[in-house]
Amino acid sequence: MSERSLIFPSAEYRSRIDRLQREMSASRLDALLLTTPADIFYVTGFLTRFWESPARPWFIVVPSSGAPIAVIPRIGADLMGRTWVKDIRTWDAPNPDDDGVSLLSDTIAGVTGPSARIGIPSGLETHTRMPLADLRKVEQLIAPRTFVDGTSAIQRVREIKTEAEISKIKAICQIADRAFARVPEFATIGRPLDRVFRDFQIALLDEGADWVSYVAGGAEQDGYGDVISPAGPTPLEAGDVLMLDTGAVRDGYFCDFDRNFSLGPVSDATRKAHHGLWQATDDLMSELRPGMLACDAHHILSDSLIRYGAKPSGGRFGHGLGINLTEWPSFSPVDRTPLRENMVLTIEPGAWVTEDRILVHEENIVLRANGCELLSERAPYDMPEIG
Amino acid sequence: MSERSLIFPSAEYRSRIDRLQREMSASRLDALLLTTPADIFYVTGFLTRFWESPARPWFIVVPSSGAPIAVIPRIGADLMGRTWVKDIRTWDAPNPDDDGVSLLSDTIAGVTGPSARIGIPSGLETHTRMPLADLRKVEQLIAPRTFVDGTSAIQRVREIKTEAEISKIKAICQIADRAFARVPEFATIGRPLDRVFRDFQIALLDEGADWVSYVAGGAEQDGYGDVISPAGPTPLEAGDVLMLDTGAVRDGYFCDFDRNFSLGPVSDATRKAHHGLWQATDDLMSELRPGMLACDAHHILSDSLIRYGAKPSGGRFGHGLGINLTEWPSFSPVDRTPLRENMVLTIEPGAWVTEDRILVHEENIVLRANGCELLSERAPYDMPEIG
Repeated sequence: MSERSLIFPSAEYRSRIDRLQREMSASRLDALLLTTPADIFYVTGFLTRFWESPARPWFIVVPSSGAPIAVIPRIGADLMGRTWVKDIRTWDAPNPDDDGVSLLSDTIAGVTGPSARIGIPSGLETHTRMPLADLRKVEQLIAPRTFVDGTSAIQRVREIKTEAEISKIKAICQIADRAFARVPEFATIGRPLDRVFRDFQIALLDEGADWVSYVAGGAEQDGYGDVISPAGPTPLEAGDVLMLDTGAVRDGYFCDFDRNFSLGPVSDATRKAHHGLWQATDDLMSELRPGMLACDAHHILSDSLIRYGAKPSGGRFGHGLGINLTEWPSFSPVDRTPLRENMVLTIEPGAWVTEDRILVHEENIVLRANGCELLSERAPYDMPEIG
Repeated sequence: MSERSLIFPSAEYRSRIDRLQREMSASRLDALLLTTPADIFYVTGFLTRFWESPARPWFIVVPSSGAPIAVIPRIGADLMGRTWVKDIRTWDAPNPDDDGVSLLSDTIAGVTGPSARIGIPSGLETHTRMPLADLRKVEQLIAPRTFVDGTSAIQRVREIKTEAEISKIKAICQIADRAFARVPEFATIGRPLDRVFRDFQIALLDEGADWVSYVAGGAEQDGYGDVISPAGPTPLEAGDVLMLDTGAVRDGYFCDFDRNFSLGPVSDATRKAHHGLWQATDDLMSELRPGMLACDAHHILSDSLIRYGAKPSGGRFGHGLGINLTEWPSFSPVDRTPLRENMVLTIEPGAWVTEDRILVHEENIVLRANGCELLSERAPYDMPEIG
């Protein structure tokens, strides 16, 4: 099992920590406390599905210089010991009397002075994966040190992908490309949608996904009502638009794109909306450059959709992608995050087909100095007819 | 898709809210704020894999009387609208300026008086799935109302399963039973462990799991080094003990049990440890009754293991199960939670085979007034030989 547990050579993690410590210095942070699966995987390479158990908190303390310190439940010591992290402190969790609180507080106090500012990601798209009461206890125990917002430090680093990361995302996109190519084998008229969802997950696993963290979709006439529902047993019908969307995972990295299929011929309105989405995506891929803002991408997509006669849906039209299914920024009218070279992003405009049905079209790209490089295989201009 | 979106009739949810409001009253809570996928699914029936995206917070406010109120991103309005919840308030998320903060604060203020105590689960095995900075803003906006710990209210209710819930857990256990029965088809000497993990997930989906949130395991001589690693490409070898553990999901409910297989004959030490684990599990299933404490189960298992010549491993020996892969309480020496009728629990003693290899044996049960009722099919006394 050990062969896969590091994912990247130690040098990759050291360079991440160097970049993180530069950002921490710019934000005047004396240490950074990380608690989520993605942040912890990012700095350590610690990859496990055990996060599915909410029973235990896990902590990584990144000091202002030197390697990170793991403060974790004993059950994780063996696996963490196979990463590049050498300072691993454990306790028997879950412990109702002291679930890592004193060990974490001592660790923070050991690597910082009494006036230290301890960053903890607290802003948009973050949460703190530990009991709130314990966080408050740690806050008291480490005083006069204070917790301050560490969102920017971790986000400005994680949002720029290394070539090693881009290769991993490209690999899982190619796995999803191959699974999407097999959809006509099992998405036939009369087959229940929940069985199609299972078959699609099976195809993703069979093509090389380690696991499938996300599948959503829909199958209705003229598009679909929402894009986050689980599937029910309704059989596919002639004239349905089948959409399948996936976040599959390989080596801890996600793809996130969808594909639309028509079960026999679809309505003119559906065809026109699909063409508009395809063209708008093409326009954005031609125009997007580092230095633009996230909201600029939304404007370009909206304007294109309208130009091609499609009606833009609400919601965001794309987002970051990597070790979470969705990362910041958002292609929304209100997100002014600067787009930077080597951000990996989804482009996913949506358009209304009827009053209550939409189509969504999605690609995954990496933003290079001279523009977009596709990671997913470009969807066809005409929706493939299957069934 | 709508057929599956409610999971249970409205009466099930109403009775959950009634029980919750009685616990809230006992804890003098004027409202309860819920933020996690499991807590929100529990009171509403809102089931989606969209939680995989950490971009947006979701809130349910349970007032001291009456139905819960959903304060959620607009993208979830359609799906929430198909549950029994009728008061649904939405905003365009993610919004960097106000990501539901004012809407949530207004909602809390609208259903409570100024001196209200608002429960928020803050204790062992909880976390608050929203940005910490936003939680602090809400705290200020709702003052003089205060946040207090609401862990006990939600845990005392969720830990007792209704017959409808027990049926769901039984159904996913039976799916896993059928998938485990197929392991000899694909776990053969020479096959890489990561391919075996994929095949096992495929078998679970094929047998009816909606998705597979957790698979772990190992394959080594005399047991395995840890039980939370992802699989690497090492081929199965003669003499290996293959362990597969799964948390598969159907209708939002988990199973969580493992099975051990021997690739050809295994060592005497391995056989003896397996027999000890099996006997200890049998002993606990005979003796466990409502009214005992969680730590009593640990003592019974430890004592039995020693009596049968096996060496108890560290860590807990079982836990609650339901809409999370792991729920409280823990069969550990320090957990004094009373065991109650209709708790669904895992029994999972571990034993050292050598200095650094363990075996783990697991069953899922529901605790009835007169003792344990198996939900998983009882593992055989002798480890099945395959390969």
